Amino acid sequence: MTTYSAPLRDFDFLLHEVMGVADADIPGYDALDRETTAAIHTEAAKLAETILAPLNEIGDAQGCRLENGVVTTPEGFPDAYRRLGDGGWIALDCDEAHGGTGMPYLMNCTTGEMFVSANMALNMYQGLTHGAISALQVHGSPDQQARYLPPMVAGRWTGTMNLTEPQCGTDLGLIRTRAEPQDDGSYRITGQKIWISGGEHDMAENIVHLVLARIPGGPAGTKGLSLFVVPKFLVKDDGSLGARNGVSCVGLEAKMGIHGASTCVMAYEAAQGWLVGAEHGGLKAMFTMMNEARLGVGLQGYAVAVRAHQAAVAFARERLQGRSVTGAKNPDGPADPILVHPDVRRALMDQRAFIEGARAFAFWGATLIDRAHRARDPDAEGLISLLTPVIKGYLTDQGFETCVSAQQVPGGTGYVAGAGFEQFTRDARIAMIYEGTNGIQALDLVGRKLGANGGKAMLAFADLIRAETRNGEADPALEADFVAPLREAARDLQAAVGVFIERGMKEPEQALAGAHDFLRLTGHVCLGLMWVRMARAAQAGLAAGNGDAAFYEAKLATGRHYMRWALPETALHLRRIQTGGETVMALPAEAF
Amino acid sequence: MTTYSAPLRDFDFLLHEVMGVADADIPGYDALDRETTAAIHTEAAKLAETILAPLNEIGDAQGCRLENGVVTTPEGFPDAYRRLGDGGWIALDCDEAHGGTGMPYLMNCTTGEMFVSANMALNMYQGLTHGAISALQVHGSPDQQARYLPPMVAGRWTGTMNLTEPQCGTDLGLIRTRAEPQDDGSYRITGQKIWISGGEHDMAENIVHLVLARIPGGPAGTKGLSLFVVPKFLVKDDGSLGARNGVSCVGLEAKMGIHGASTCVMAYEAAQGWLVGAEHGGLKAMFTMMNEARLGVGLQGYAVAVRAHQAAVAFARERLQGRSVTGAKNPDGPADPILVHPDVRRALMDQRAFIEGARAFAFWGATLIDRAHRARDPDAEGLISLLTPVIKGYLTDQGFETCVSAQQVPGGTGYVAGAGFEQFTRDARIAMIYEGTNGIQALDLVGRKLGANGGKAMLAFADLIRAETRNGEADPALEADFVAPLREAARDLQAAVGVFIERGMKEPEQALAGAHDFLRLTGHVCLGLMWVRMARAAQAGLAAGNGDAAFYEAKLATGRHYMRWALPETALHLRRIQTGGETVMALPAEAF
Repeated sequence: MTTYSAPLRDFDFLLHEVMGVADADIPGYDALDRETTAAIHTEAAKLAETILAPLNEIGDAQGCRLENGVVTTPEGFPDAYRRLGDGGWIALDCDEAHGGTGMPYLMNCTTGEMFVSANMALNMYQGLTHGAISALQVHGSPDQQARYLPPMVAGRWTGTMNLTEPQCGTDLGLIRTRAEPQDDGSYRITGQKIWISGGEHDMAENIVHLVLARIPGGPAGTKGLSLFVVPKFLVKDDGSLGARNGVSCVGLEAKMGIHGASTCVMAYEAAQGWLVGAEHGGLKAMFTMMNEARLGVGLQGYAVAVRAHQAAVAFARERLQGRSVTGAKNPDGPADPILVHPDVRRALMDQRAFIEGARAFAFWGATLIDRAHRARDPDAEGLISLLTPVIKGYLTDQGFETCVSAQQVPGGTGYVAGAGFEQFTRDARIAMIYEGTNGIQALDLVGRKLGANGGKAMLAFADLIRAETRNGEADPALEADFVAPLREAARDLQAAVGVFIERGMKEPEQALAGAHDFLRLTGHVCLGLMWVRMARAAQAGLAAGNGDAAFYEAKLATGRHYMRWALPETALHLRRIQTGGETVMALPAEAF
Repeated sequence: MTTYSAPLRDFDFLLHEVMGVADADIPGYDALDRETTAAIHTEAAKLAETILAPLNEIGDAQGCRLENGVVTTPEGFPDAYRRLGDGGWIALDCDEAHGGTGMPYLMNCTTGEMFVSANMALNMYQGLTHGAISALQVHGSPDQQARYLPPMVAGRWTGTMNLTEPQCGTDLGLIRTRAEPQDDGSYRITGQKIWISGGEHDMAENIVHLVLARIPGGPAGTKGLSLFVVPKFLVKDDGSLGARNGVSCVGLEAKMGIHGASTCVMAYEAAQGWLVGAEHGGLKAMFTMMNEARLGVGLQGYAVAVRAHQAAVAFARERLQGRSVTGAKNPDGPADPILVHPDVRRALMDQRAFIEGARAFAFWGATLIDRAHRARDPDAEGLISLLTPVIKGYLTDQGFETCVSAQQVPGGTGYVAGAGFEQFTRDARIAMIYEGTNGIQALDLVGRKLGANGGKAMLAFADLIRAETRNGEADPALEADFVAPLREAARDLQAAVGVFIERGMKEPEQALAGAHDFLRLTGHVCLGLMWVRMARAAQAGLAAGNGDAAFYEAKLATGRHYMRWALPETALHLRRIQTGGETVMALPAEAF
């Protein structure tokens, strides 16, 4: 069994030395002083390390069980979820009026990273509930908010999102589930939804389903979708539970991973539901949640890799096999720890450089969401909308690859159950798929976000990079090791944007063939930018001589590795984008 | 459940149009005329498609069970293995004197690809048995050969390889298992072996274990290892089975994949064994099998991907979701098949271009092994020794990535059990680990093979590429689309070799940090070379107008995709190699 150790020093470094959150001009950030964030992180870490992490393997081994419509989750899961609720961790950022603490969303992400690293499957119940809370906070009526939010925030009830149906995943315009209006203002929902995470389980007294359905007579396609709240048990006006609603779990998916998370086939049989937001405004309501939901999945992508990397490091320290090529490092033992071997070290450095950059990227994204929502800053909204598919797509692709790389370090031990590694790989795999496959993220980035508002957000991002890389960096080592490589990568990005501008309209297939590479190119530039910022902060920390030199030196060494070994991938992506999709689209369909 | 369709046209194309095997000056190849190979492939395909493939999912779901030392394999596995034996498929290439057909090893690979695509877990019993047969053919005494080979070749007995122990996998010098000499010339073997594939099962009457152990008094390290044959049941002189030997399965690993293959902890308790080959010559005996064994794993790497790709294509044809960006392609349906979307098409083309190149590479490797063994050609031996770690490492890395890519095509369906996709990913993952992790392959390539005999093999490989890419390609399209890109990639390879020559001796850690990238760079050049050869053959086929134009056109289009989209990766790998390992080795061990 692997253990988990929360990277508290890194959280502190990012929030206070890199991002200076307490001084940021975002409403609510002034409360994020160093002591406060440290206290919050320490509490969350304790829960993650001692309660959630030991349940990770149990959850995988036991999985969920469906009997007579009742889903039993793994041993310990209900108790652990109760602790998440008791600790206030379900929705730190929910309004105080509804039982939350009103903290910035950022703190939901920092604590969320730990919970995911500790136990991704368990934390999915929290993640889905958080999403439903956010949707009701924005689109729910005051009565709906009062009725549903407090018990969800407290962890007594959970939430779900019901979009997918057998005939449609990506293409929601094909949704068939019907919502028949009733005289009392409610609706009767009928249809089947699939792949509903947390659709049924034994961890909460009630489950609040948010369901996309079609009111008869509305427009076809996505424009005719409305959002409904459908509780498992009807809720009386005093908040107590009433009759069981007409919604039930009729199937449970066996999955590659996240076994502790129930993935349900849900049957709605004239279930009573209430409209959330406007009629036919369902997709729009879902979309306003999307940046947050997708950032949450991106966070999963690297958070599982955090734990996989920790396990790989522990193995590499302990396993004695072979000798260092430069002479024995453990001469009194039968062999050296495999940490001495350059290829093992390369893999560990690749993992580490990605993880630390990804964390900075996700947290920066969270501050953009906070700025967009709390300061109502349209530029922040534009930037995070542009970067959301990159956070989701790049961090989950690379997070999975990082788990695979970590799994490779221990050799055979990486393949056997119970050692942890293979579970991390299986769990991490889903993040590339759900909440919009990474192919859809790439399409969203290139087909929608890149050109939105005349390309304003990408121009703003380019300006931001330019501001960080203008000539005249005072420190020559920073210039050579960090700023110059980012400048080079940003040139690749700019050239790629040029290709899309030139080709996008007249040869859309040619352009879209390069969408995946463009997403990765952008992801690398983002992580390069993060490393420039972290390197500056580490230099400042060293210069201040505050006694943590080893931490800062390690940060700089890790960043240099990213800039030299990972960032040059931008040239390959640019080349593919320039090459275009001729060979991609060349084969006739029948030749496949 | 997915189906499997054997790529018979491709086999024919490679053997006869690309490699011209019937005319090759390798003893035994004259028998490989087009009709003969077609007949063999058709028979093997029937078995693979109708018997082995349907058992793949059952094998995964049921796995193996250990009770009181007895391992029960999945339903249908024993019968299927008997059919492999009855059909003569266990060791086509074994000498006729021992019950084989004496066919070239190449035919073992072509048929083996189908068996692996159909059912990797089941075919592992064949693969291990084949390895044991090969070892006994080369190193066994005439008595051992007569005693063990015929029933193994016939599929009545199976074979295993016993190397790993708890304290050693890669570093075999740490092996502790003892072999005490007895007065009758036999030995008593005592020790524990782990991760023994097929160590115990219910598919054969007897199991022939080949075991690395240490004769007391011998040299320390790998020089003191000897190879022993240790049958599960002792074999009387008339070939009938005698007493149960002191070897038993005391544990079964739960694994990420290949559930149908038993992976055993084996206890040897004064088990009777007989020396195979010379005393203290055990490692050498194992090494002579290694090219073949590693090529077999490389073949697994892409063969699983073949089936994953077929499943992805089938899904992409059937699933209706969204509309083509250039206008509806299925206007009468609710949506277009997702095959129309450029990102889906890109993924499928990446998969296809890799698979077809990998197949050519593996088959070419098999002909080199045949040339080395049958024609006793030291140059072929040198070349295949150089390329073996590339075949193993590159084809399994990329084969796994190809399975992951195929799994991405169906979205959520790729993640649920029973749809096939997630099993392919889990199964393919092991090939990167066993038979020497891919990190070890990279070390073997750079640290051992590159400089062997003064770098003779790499020089020969460079000559070979040069001969295929000299200026003056008659066909301008071939020159532009295939030859020129290979020439460019070969320049990257040459530059990388230069870095290793310059740096290897004086900065070994710097050099070895680039080993992984060098392996991938070489792999790309090899696949590029294969595509040049295939493109020439396809052009020739088109020119001959033999009525299969669609096949040749698709081959050329697929090859162009490889040359434009995959091959340029060589520049990235070269850049990393040139960058060197400074950042890889920079962190002190305690900083991890």
